[in-house]
Amino acid sequence: MRGDASRPVTISVIAESAGVSIPTVSKVINRRAGVSADTRARVEAAIDQYGYRRPTSKARSRLMELVFPELASVWAVEIIRGVEQVARANQVRVLVSQFGLHDSESPGWLDEVPSHRPGCVIRVAQLSAAEREQLQTRGIPFVVFDPTAELPAGVPFVGATNWTGGQSAISHLVALGHHRIAMISGPESILFCRARLAGYRSALETARLPYDPDLVAHTQYLTREDGHAAARILLSRTPRPTAIFASNDLQALGVYQAAREAGLRIPDDLSVVGFDDLPIAAWADPPLTTVHQPLTEMAAAATEMALDLGRGIPATRTGLELATTLVVRDSTAPPLR
Amino acid sequence: MRGDASRPVTISVIAESAGVSIPTVSKVINRRAGVSADTRARVEAAIDQYGYRRPTSKARSRLMELVFPELASVWAVEIIRGVEQVARANQVRVLVSQFGLHDSESPGWLDEVPSHRPGCVIRVAQLSAAEREQLQTRGIPFVVFDPTAELPAGVPFVGATNWTGGQSAISHLVALGHHRIAMISGPESILFCRARLAGYRSALETARLPYDPDLVAHTQYLTREDGHAAARILLSRTPRPTAIFASNDLQALGVYQAAREAGLRIPDDLSVVGFDDLPIAAWADPPLTTVHQPLTEMAAAATEMALDLGRGIPATRTGLELATTLVVRDSTAPPLR
Repeated sequence: MRGDASRPVTISVIAESAGVSIPTVSKVINRRAGVSADTRARVEAAIDQYGYRRPTSKARSRLMELVFPELASVWAVEIIRGVEQVARANQVRVLVSQFGLHDSESPGWLDEVPSHRPGCVIRVAQLSAAEREQLQTRGIPFVVFDPTAELPAGVPFVGATNWTGGQSAISHLVALGHHRIAMISGPESILFCRARLAGYRSALETARLPYDPDLVAHTQYLTREDGHAAARILLSRTPRPTAIFASNDLQALGVYQAAREAGLRIPDDLSVVGFDDLPIAAWADPPLTTVHQPLTEMAAAATEMALDLGRGIPATRTGLELATTLVVRDSTAPPLR
Repeated sequence: MRGDASRPVTISVIAESAGVSIPTVSKVINRRAGVSADTRARVEAAIDQYGYRRPTSKARSRLMELVFPELASVWAVEIIRGVEQVARANQVRVLVSQFGLHDSESPGWLDEVPSHRPGCVIRVAQLSAAEREQLQTRGIPFVVFDPTAELPAGVPFVGATNWTGGQSAISHLVALGHHRIAMISGPESILFCRARLAGYRSALETARLPYDPDLVAHTQYLTREDGHAAARILLSRTPRPTAIFASNDLQALGVYQAAREAGLRIPDDLSVVGFDDLPIAAWADPPLTTVHQPLTEMAAAATEMALDLGRGIPATRTGLELATTLVVRDSTAPPLR
């Protein structure tokens, strides 16, 4: 028998039938400790008798997913750490996966065993329209982490204050006395690259320094190699720039290499500022002045936001940008000339 | 009604009752496409009628877990990438978590919603006796990745050829003409540190060079800071060593710093060899000669092993060590004196 068909089989029906409390039933279902063998057997008998099936919403809320476009970046681990910390505090498990734009239109993670479907998703960097639609159709809330493109209104995201960060880097160089400050910017298609570049321009304007397009190099990727190639071009300009602001720390390491090859000393002949403040920034020779992006805190904030949405708590704010801070190390100094 | 109690409700009972094939029932259960609304309704009615519950083994085999002692290391992402690649090819999702020795004896991940229980576990670096017992009790197979301690016989693991790697580093330095070669070793409690140190000693012996305990510094951690402190001590020995083999790349970066502080040029005054070959090794100034540890391939191999065990396929071998290779860059050269 399956009980009265007109009455839905809920956890309280099971509790009543077994003569125990709801928390006790919950313990048995979730195989937690603190239930005697006798009670456990009675609850399990009631579950069998009523053909009770645990609602999936409960199961879903215990899993979340963190999706990277690629797991190659040195900052992935900072993000994972932030997500894992908050998820663990909420007793939620974290699925980590890789799903690039080069992959098929249909995200593989949605066609899974339903019980393994995440209660919410954090998508790093990008979220295609197709993905967004599929997540919405399945009722899986999502947050975009550090979006690389403008998002439609209402799509929740967490990023950093990239424009302000760019500004602070240039203000620091201006305060040191630099007048010819070059910038290596990533692709214009990337939102945070545009924001950092805009910060550079605004700071120059504030300092009443001219904006010289010859002192801005755009690269295809945010890699050390692209930073190196761009720095070679910028260092060949006449007069040579006395400082270079790179779009991230890897590019800044490429600037270091180009400076070495050109026989330029950092910071005596060339000041360099990066962005991100990955561990490698402090390890560089000389240690790199850079704009600290609080990746772990950003990931923690994105996780709190996603978990709230997964619990049906409406978002108090759709987007959030966490403050960057300039970390001054040894790669910046007043210009010699 | 729940059908004949003497007959277990299997997927074939549902298929038979609904007059469809087993793959069709599977599609409905897993909410996949390619089933008409009519058929779907008929299958769902049969599932309800028989009170069929999907066996958990199927669900379990679609989840695996990768457990780190800490998510702080720069090599964590290399491991995650290797695991994700193989898991994805097998349509298995990857849970990533952090569970250190400082945490409670009872691994949190085992007291979860049963449907989220992993089909197999890869434990990075360490597996306590308590954890092992709990995994065994729950029938969850596991593989230890890069074990830091000796494992009981029969516990599956994947590591690298640390002894051979240590040997190859020293043979390279000996071939360059070095006779006073120091080593920075991590804690003796860590298995792979002992293996690398043993490789150092064996290579010295092969080269008929004396083993001088004054030229071996043990550090508490495998960090850049500890490498720096140890290098300062080693560089104060008389006569000064002409080469230092560090237990990993981070320690080697610490040697770089100590050499700079002492006014020593690398490789002219001091040759340096690291271990791991993380991306930072190639970015160092000068690029670091190091023993390449194939972390991503090791993680892929561990995943294949764990998934096989999760499917009940007996292990053809318990342990596996993947070959390291020496990558010669610009931090090693013949000694000047």
